[in-house]
Amino acid sequence: MPTPHRTCTVGLIQMVCEVDPQTNLEQAMALIREAAGRGAQVICLPELFRSPYFCQTEDYDAFQLAEPIPGPSTEALLPLAQELNVVIIASLFERRAAGLYHNTAVVLDGQRGYLGKYRKMHIPDDPLYYEKFYFTPGDLGFKCFATSRAALGVLVCWDQWYPEAARLTALRGAEILFYPTAIGWHPAEKESLGPQQHQAWETLQRAHGIANGCYVVAVNRAGFEPTPNGQGEGLVFWGQSFVSGPDGAVLARGPADQAAVLVVDLDLAAIDRVRTGWPFLRDRRIDAYSDLTQRWLDREGD
Amino acid sequence: MPTPHRTCTVGLIQMVCEVDPQTNLEQAMALIREAAGRGAQVICLPELFRSPYFCQTEDYDAFQLAEPIPGPSTEALLPLAQELNVVIIASLFERRAAGLYHNTAVVLDGQRGYLGKYRKMHIPDDPLYYEKFYFTPGDLGFKCFATSRAALGVLVCWDQWYPEAARLTALRGAEILFYPTAIGWHPAEKESLGPQQHQAWETLQRAHGIANGCYVVAVNRAGFEPTPNGQGEGLVFWGQSFVSGPDGAVLARGPADQAAVLVVDLDLAAIDRVRTGWPFLRDRRIDAYSDLTQRWLDREGD
Repeated sequence: MPTPHRTCTVGLIQMVCEVDPQTNLEQAMALIREAAGRGAQVICLPELFRSPYFCQTEDYDAFQLAEPIPGPSTEALLPLAQELNVVIIASLFERRAAGLYHNTAVVLDGQRGYLGKYRKMHIPDDPLYYEKFYFTPGDLGFKCFATSRAALGVLVCWDQWYPEAARLTALRGAEILFYPTAIGWHPAEKESLGPQQHQAWETLQRAHGIANGCYVVAVNRAGFEPTPNGQGEGLVFWGQSFVSGPDGAVLARGPADQAAVLVVDLDLAAIDRVRTGWPFLRDRRIDAYSDLTQRWLDREGD
Repeated sequence: MPTPHRTCTVGLIQMVCEVDPQTNLEQAMALIREAAGRGAQVICLPELFRSPYFCQTEDYDAFQLAEPIPGPSTEALLPLAQELNVVIIASLFERRAAGLYHNTAVVLDGQRGYLGKYRKMHIPDDPLYYEKFYFTPGDLGFKCFATSRAALGVLVCWDQWYPEAARLTALRGAEILFYPTAIGWHPAEKESLGPQQHQAWETLQRAHGIANGCYVVAVNRAGFEPTPNGQGEGLVFWGQSFVSGPDGAVLARGPADQAAVLVVDLDLAAIDRVRTGWPFLRDRRIDAYSDLTQRWLDREGD
């Protein structure tokens, strides 16, 4: 039985985020409209697109940015998804209960509406990325969303450094792994470590596509955002949103320093071709992987 | 407590293998001597270096190439490891019992002698790579060898496509992941698919180093080997043995089409620095990884 010809056109909305959440929402909706006008069927926004990256400091007031899901952002985006007949992946700051917040991505599917959400499983905590202060690690596990356009895996930023996350999402059937992202350089490190950091980031995500025979779509923000109250040097978000194929080839890459809308046609039948040629899933040693649930495999006697 | 300054100099023996096993052994020993003379402390040979890549066909006579471990090859290499005071990683065709064979790598550590073996866990089977005919999948699990020079992970070829193998080996403490390899192009595909295949191979292995904050050393063979009895077009082994760092940067890469000895100094303290900056091990969601022991995560009702 020949693989049926299937394509999916993805839209990457690389944003420079403003201070005002309403401005960012309107900007996002305008760029979604632009992407759809250029043929995009599945459109992904960057991580926490409604605000500056507030995790640069630990600020109780920033919890005011959170919202229930479904809530105001999904109510604004749902009619747009329906009108344009597109899938929208939107990363939001979720208020689940008093004192309980998540970094959550929602999937809205055209006429079908709200399809579900993924709560970021891996939470970073590094200078100017104080996410453990804000976000409870996700409790929904790794998910695949059977949208009208393709089977979509949705992960968020720090998840992109974990082969386990990509594998578990692919094993659920995801054909495309989406990574809404907010990653940048410390200005003092940009010149010395910037290319190395960016290369590692892109390389590891391309590798997720190779290991699992699927597409990868990473959507980052761009531009400089100062640290509130002069508590840090700020972050230079490195843009360079990209799409890579099941063979790891980079199919498109956005600019480093400005907003951009990328629209890329994906040949979903390539997944079948590549996995047939490189049958990695066939030979996994599932009898020997149980220690992946261990933190570290200390030698006896330690 | 500052990280102590530690280095390890690795030697990669990229070989063009001849038909006669004795010739290959002598060639390997001469190249090991050359690498040690240039300062190498841990020296790795390519996969199944004692013969042509016999897995191009399913040939009962090829089992005659197998040997017990320890056995003739370790007996030849042990005095050399002792004399040069180096670690040698040698990939051998192991005869374990009548009708029971493995693709096995041994670790010999200078004065300490035979340290142990790793049996290839993931066995491929593709046109001209008929390894499932020859090799029983390994039953020793993923291993780290505490040598006098560094903690070494040893994996073999097809293992390199599996993030699980790299992770489990790194969790056992490996500072360097070695991959003796025999990978090449089908001549008819070299022009159209060659660069893509090679890029995927190198990218995914570099990614293992990034995800786990360790060095990666891949040692391939080079040169064209015809398929016996005209049953195939032969294989063009692609050489390009390489070393990458814990940040994924390629530190050295061999030529594509000839034998070569690479000697590369590794700063082992960089592992600590990189892992401190990128604390991926800290945030693994070991509570959510148990499904990695599943073959595929079918949706309910399938």
